[in-house]
Amino acid sequence: MPGPGPDAVPEQHGEPTTWVPGATGSLFDLDHLPYGVFARGEEEPRVGVRIGDHVLDLAPIAAAQMLEVSRTFQQPSLNELMGYGPELVAALRRWIVGLLTQADERPLVEPHLVPLTEVTLSLPIEVADYVDFYASEHHATNVGRILRPDGEPLLANWKHLPVGYHGRAGTVVASGTPIRRPSGQRRGGTFGPSARLDVEAELGFVVGVGSTLGTPVPCSAFAEHVFGVVGLNDWSARDIQAWEYQPLGPFLGKSFATSISHWVTPLAALDAAWVDPPPQDPEPLPYLAPGATRGLDLDVEIEVNGRVVSRPAYRTMYWSPAQMLAHLTVNGASLRTGDLFGSGTISGPEPGQRGCLLELGWGEESAFLADGDEVVLRYTAPGTGGGRIGLGEVRGGIASALPTP
Amino acid sequence: MPGPGPDAVPEQHGEPTTWVPGATGSLFDLDHLPYGVFARGEEEPRVGVRIGDHVLDLAPIAAAQMLEVSRTFQQPSLNELMGYGPELVAALRRWIVGLLTQADERPLVEPHLVPLTEVTLSLPIEVADYVDFYASEHHATNVGRILRPDGEPLLANWKHLPVGYHGRAGTVVASGTPIRRPSGQRRGGTFGPSARLDVEAELGFVVGVGSTLGTPVPCSAFAEHVFGVVGLNDWSARDIQAWEYQPLGPFLGKSFATSISHWVTPLAALDAAWVDPPPQDPEPLPYLAPGATRGLDLDVEIEVNGRVVSRPAYRTMYWSPAQMLAHLTVNGASLRTGDLFGSGTISGPEPGQRGCLLELGWGEESAFLADGDEVVLRYTAPGTGGGRIGLGEVRGGIASALPTP
Repeated sequence: MPGPGPDAVPEQHGEPTTWVPGATGSLFDLDHLPYGVFARGEEEPRVGVRIGDHVLDLAPIAAAQMLEVSRTFQQPSLNELMGYGPELVAALRRWIVGLLTQADERPLVEPHLVPLTEVTLSLPIEVADYVDFYASEHHATNVGRILRPDGEPLLANWKHLPVGYHGRAGTVVASGTPIRRPSGQRRGGTFGPSARLDVEAELGFVVGVGSTLGTPVPCSAFAEHVFGVVGLNDWSARDIQAWEYQPLGPFLGKSFATSISHWVTPLAALDAAWVDPPPQDPEPLPYLAPGATRGLDLDVEIEVNGRVVSRPAYRTMYWSPAQMLAHLTVNGASLRTGDLFGSGTISGPEPGQRGCLLELGWGEESAFLADGDEVVLRYTAPGTGGGRIGLGEVRGGIASALPTP
Repeated sequence: MPGPGPDAVPEQHGEPTTWVPGATGSLFDLDHLPYGVFARGEEEPRVGVRIGDHVLDLAPIAAAQMLEVSRTFQQPSLNELMGYGPELVAALRRWIVGLLTQADERPLVEPHLVPLTEVTLSLPIEVADYVDFYASEHHATNVGRILRPDGEPLLANWKHLPVGYHGRAGTVVASGTPIRRPSGQRRGGTFGPSARLDVEAELGFVVGVGSTLGTPVPCSAFAEHVFGVVGLNDWSARDIQAWEYQPLGPFLGKSFATSISHWVTPLAALDAAWVDPPPQDPEPLPYLAPGATRGLDLDVEIEVNGRVVSRPAYRTMYWSPAQMLAHLTVNGASLRTGDLFGSGTISGPEPGQRGCLLELGWGEESAFLADGDEVVLRYTAPGTGGGRIGLGEVRGGIASALPTP
């Protein structure tokens, strides 16, 4: 066993509070504890956990306690940690809570508490495969109405299965990475910088434990495989996408960049956020666990140049996270540590809850992003401590296109 | 420098022949030398090169010559080797030719020549991103006629850009891996094993040297980035695909498995196989190097249960390999070592040259694969020695579906 077992960790009684200044009552209190990858100065990037406005440098603490997991914390991604599986991850969480709450641990721990202002954060995971779904009925309906005004807004398959497709894993970047406006072909085969550059506010699910080729993962095994969630912006060039996407789906309109948050929020931090999803009609097939699956209650904000332009609500999503995972694997496709699947654009029923500029501007070209625009996605959810937690933000600024050769 | 420099390698004059028994005049003669990953007994998998019906175990020979590249040959994939770039890869090729031709090398080399019958071959590359194109006009036209008999067979974008999409990298498997028939949703939301399981005979291109996010790779830089080619079977469940693919493209109809050959044929072995591609009308945009791009002359055979059912010809492909690569990156998407892109189904103009059973049976359900069927794809091309080379075969047998839960 590479880390502390359940017996090595003192049980927490009541509601402990942390001695870390400023953390109590913040979006990064003890009930959150997201993991990320950080570096201080010229040091190698390694795994840390966020508490308040600090990163706890886990490797030296684990080393001082002679825990083997110290080597895992020295990795430049969370993948090895995520692969441990839910029991060991739960034990590590109890160990970290102990470090941050017990007065007798403070002298050992405090020297390894680094202010966020002193670190550089990087992409937290090595992405294996990236899949993007289309799980919001409101988003799919709005897009259908905008792009096919004379047809049925939802296609015939939409309420039978969570529509999804594979995206480019190699261009998933960390929050803060500048996004260069892509150039490409638009309708009719003209070429130039995209004039319809968009955001898609999504939630991303990160796989910790892989599965066997040929064996589907049922809805009930969701928590055995999924490690946690990230904020995700699936940048989209609508004009490139519109010209290329038939019949094989989006390609260059999406593959230039997908931004995720620096912090991966473990599933345990979302224990208080599970809610019943909207009713599903027709009843989905048995492998999609009709009636038994749960949704998530997260509030999202899309901020453009400092102004909040929309407040999508994740609880309105039609297809649940477990349904997406079960569908992704029902053909026997295997999972790997580091697989990432996005929910698709999060849009609620109200105009002020739309998750992309295509919907917010109802197709008007002026609604899309200009060079220099800065977009921030923020996410909060009920925490297990009675307050709220906040996922890592997803930030990106638009750099102008390269000159057309 | 991790391996021998150009100066370390004696120049070859005339046409050397190898002392390896049975190799001269075979499909795996000195003008081929594909790389793969092999293991003998319980030993760790490592890099070898194929000559005739043998694998040359490169690591101990390099170690005996005190070449640093020995460590690269000890890796369980070709990725580190492929990342060296074309100059070093060319130097290694000259070194290997020297080993296999010079009488004074034979005593050192011969003990490390292992008969193929004594080794287990594995997946040769760690696949980073997998992209699949749709580059055959004959295939796209046939599929359009079968699936949309009343419409134009080619969609409006098809002659303007190489249509492509991302597939699942984590389910790319080595030749010989059994293919379990996938279950999934078919039209109308019914569930069960696919009744229309198909092959797609393709050529796969493997990226050796990555590129920078935001910077397109022009057609002219093809050989700086692409290491070589593999045979590729993009198994397809047509009924699952037909129900799911709108509007975001194929997903579970493809993601259950993609088979590639054990051997990666380096670009140098294809020097004699470049030909002019079919004329392109309309003239493609400048980034697709109209008139300057080259196609490849490979003959393909599809064998089902020991009988050749089709002989596709790669030289009939409309979009060239360099055009696919340039298109894939024109939006600034970066490449990584291990990226794999498939050509799409290779179909020629004649009925006997169709690259999938959907076309060969013109949509008839009886044409698709039955449980127990065994498919082999074979590829040959002109070699630089005046004869022919043969890529590694791509083999796969169909295992019956899991029971529906």
